[in-house]
Amino acid sequence: MSRTNHQYRLAARPVGLPRTTDWDQVEEPVGEPADGQLLVQVIYLSLDPAMRGWMNAGKSYIPPVEIGEVMRAGAVGRVVASRHDGFAVGDYVSGGFGVQEYCLSDGRGVTKADPALAPLSVYLGTLGMPGMTAYFGLIDIGRPEPGQTVVVSGAAGAVGSLVGQIAKIIGCRVVGIAGGESKCRMLVDELGFDAAIDYKSQDVKKELREHAPDGVDVYFDNVGGDILDTVLTRLARGARVVICGAISQYNNVEPVKGPANYMSLLVNRASMTGMVVFDYADRYAEGVAQLAEWLAAGRLQAVQDVVEGGVQDFPETLLRLFRGENTGKLVLKIADEA
Amino acid sequence: MSRTNHQYRLAARPVGLPRTTDWDQVEEPVGEPADGQLLVQVIYLSLDPAMRGWMNAGKSYIPPVEIGEVMRAGAVGRVVASRHDGFAVGDYVSGGFGVQEYCLSDGRGVTKADPALAPLSVYLGTLGMPGMTAYFGLIDIGRPEPGQTVVVSGAAGAVGSLVGQIAKIIGCRVVGIAGGESKCRMLVDELGFDAAIDYKSQDVKKELREHAPDGVDVYFDNVGGDILDTVLTRLARGARVVICGAISQYNNVEPVKGPANYMSLLVNRASMTGMVVFDYADRYAEGVAQLAEWLAAGRLQAVQDVVEGGVQDFPETLLRLFRGENTGKLVLKIADEA
Repeated sequence: MSRTNHQYRLAARPVGLPRTTDWDQVEEPVGEPADGQLLVQVIYLSLDPAMRGWMNAGKSYIPPVEIGEVMRAGAVGRVVASRHDGFAVGDYVSGGFGVQEYCLSDGRGVTKADPALAPLSVYLGTLGMPGMTAYFGLIDIGRPEPGQTVVVSGAAGAVGSLVGQIAKIIGCRVVGIAGGESKCRMLVDELGFDAAIDYKSQDVKKELREHAPDGVDVYFDNVGGDILDTVLTRLARGARVVICGAISQYNNVEPVKGPANYMSLLVNRASMTGMVVFDYADRYAEGVAQLAEWLAAGRLQAVQDVVEGGVQDFPETLLRLFRGENTGKLVLKIADEA
Repeated sequence: MSRTNHQYRLAARPVGLPRTTDWDQVEEPVGEPADGQLLVQVIYLSLDPAMRGWMNAGKSYIPPVEIGEVMRAGAVGRVVASRHDGFAVGDYVSGGFGVQEYCLSDGRGVTKADPALAPLSVYLGTLGMPGMTAYFGLIDIGRPEPGQTVVVSGAAGAVGSLVGQIAKIIGCRVVGIAGGESKCRMLVDELGFDAAIDYKSQDVKKELREHAPDGVDVYFDNVGGDILDTVLTRLARGARVVICGAISQYNNVEPVKGPANYMSLLVNRASMTGMVVFDYADRYAEGVAQLAEWLAAGRLQAVQDVVEGGVQDFPETLLRLFRGENTGKLVLKIADEA
């Protein structure tokens, strides 16, 4: 083998939106697996809002990517060489392979992906971290009951589109908040949401009054900022706010805007709770099984946005997330499946 | 009877700090109890930060005081006439008698106060709403475990001084945040707190790093604003933040300052939950019994700040709360006990 591995390694900690120059594009020869290792060729790279946080220095829920390290990324690939008992050449696998074309892995955190069960890219979405985030965040922290009203922001995104669909399966009234008419139309027409609010052209507070007249029992927040603050004014008594992300704030140069209406938690005896999907690692199998069953039964749609290109398209594709240009799970396909 | 009842009735909705002119001082003859009523002479008036919120228009956890209504207030008094089967002349009673010298009541929400069990004013503090707030807010929402670190703001106030003492009884490490050296000294020397931070002269973040080196497991917040925001940066994993009040924000003319560091809830898988003591009404007996037992055993001190005067001293006494001038439960004594 004399193949070349193209990688993106972190070069600088961005201020505001990441720029191409925040990574070095590095070439190195593809290595050979040592005993206990496997070599994976990456097919699909996962683009996630959380990547922005991983680029910052300082304590968070996982360590930051260090300068000089391959940029952290979830990915699906094919095993092209193996000296690991658990994986054979030709296996499709999912894991944290990073923004690169090939990854040598010791198999930790690597799981097999069965293309007969779902398209490979879906292992980065509905059957991957976004699916687990939506499922456990909604079920475990949101605790919606049939008939209650669930509102989700970033509703057309990877996590949001699943949160809303799962809430519908549970029997809730579901209102999505998303940016743009076409996303909103998709939520209602294709995913079965009861209503969608276009925060770019509509008055979110007024629309919530109409579509959640009895208040919001569960708010699943992916965006933070003004939308969080507005939904807080419409909480029902005993509401649960799930803090999953705050994409509106990730590229802030100014200090984060805190939710000025947080005292609504007191007035409504409500709670606001942060969730990190990794805490549910020992229950992923349960989540995958349930979501795969709903997918197979046609009760859940895996909305995805697949960009075809090469690893060099990573920076520009990542920025699509922060511009709100993706619909559903954004992945970058950098190699053929077979 | 031809006694005169002096009352404070709400005259205007304040902007910022309440002023004397926000109430009308009204005189009317003391009425006679109708069948099923009792007449109470008020002895102790309770001064509470929540009173500021009751003066605002708009939806909250209880209806606002309407313009022209007697200002809402908890009070302890003596029954001076009764046509109610449950109460006899000479009984001491606690209830929402309002800012006035006499109150005609139908007995709803009125409970007897036994001066043999605790000083009458304590029925407005440790055995009253502040006690119930501290007890249920800490136990039910904070859920502290022995060995954990509990931080409380407004620590020298009616609720805060109890929260810290109860947490000590449970076996926690307790850090109080209060304004001024003498309050801080009292917390440590008299109430047994492990440490106290004077937010007026000390760097709260730095002191928390020292006194809560493993992070804050339970934060009981009475103040909001910058202190809440600072404590959020020091949460331990799985921390519980109890939102009980936000006295720093009640008289704001500018919009409330939201907690910019709320994403610490996500990083630390923490929750922030509002509490309203009235929700625990059906468990008050349990709370009173436990607190009375601890009082009797000398494990709990009822810290109180009794101002002697007349009903006309109400506005100025209330302002002492917002200036942080009180230590412990602030009450205004407007009549003799017997």
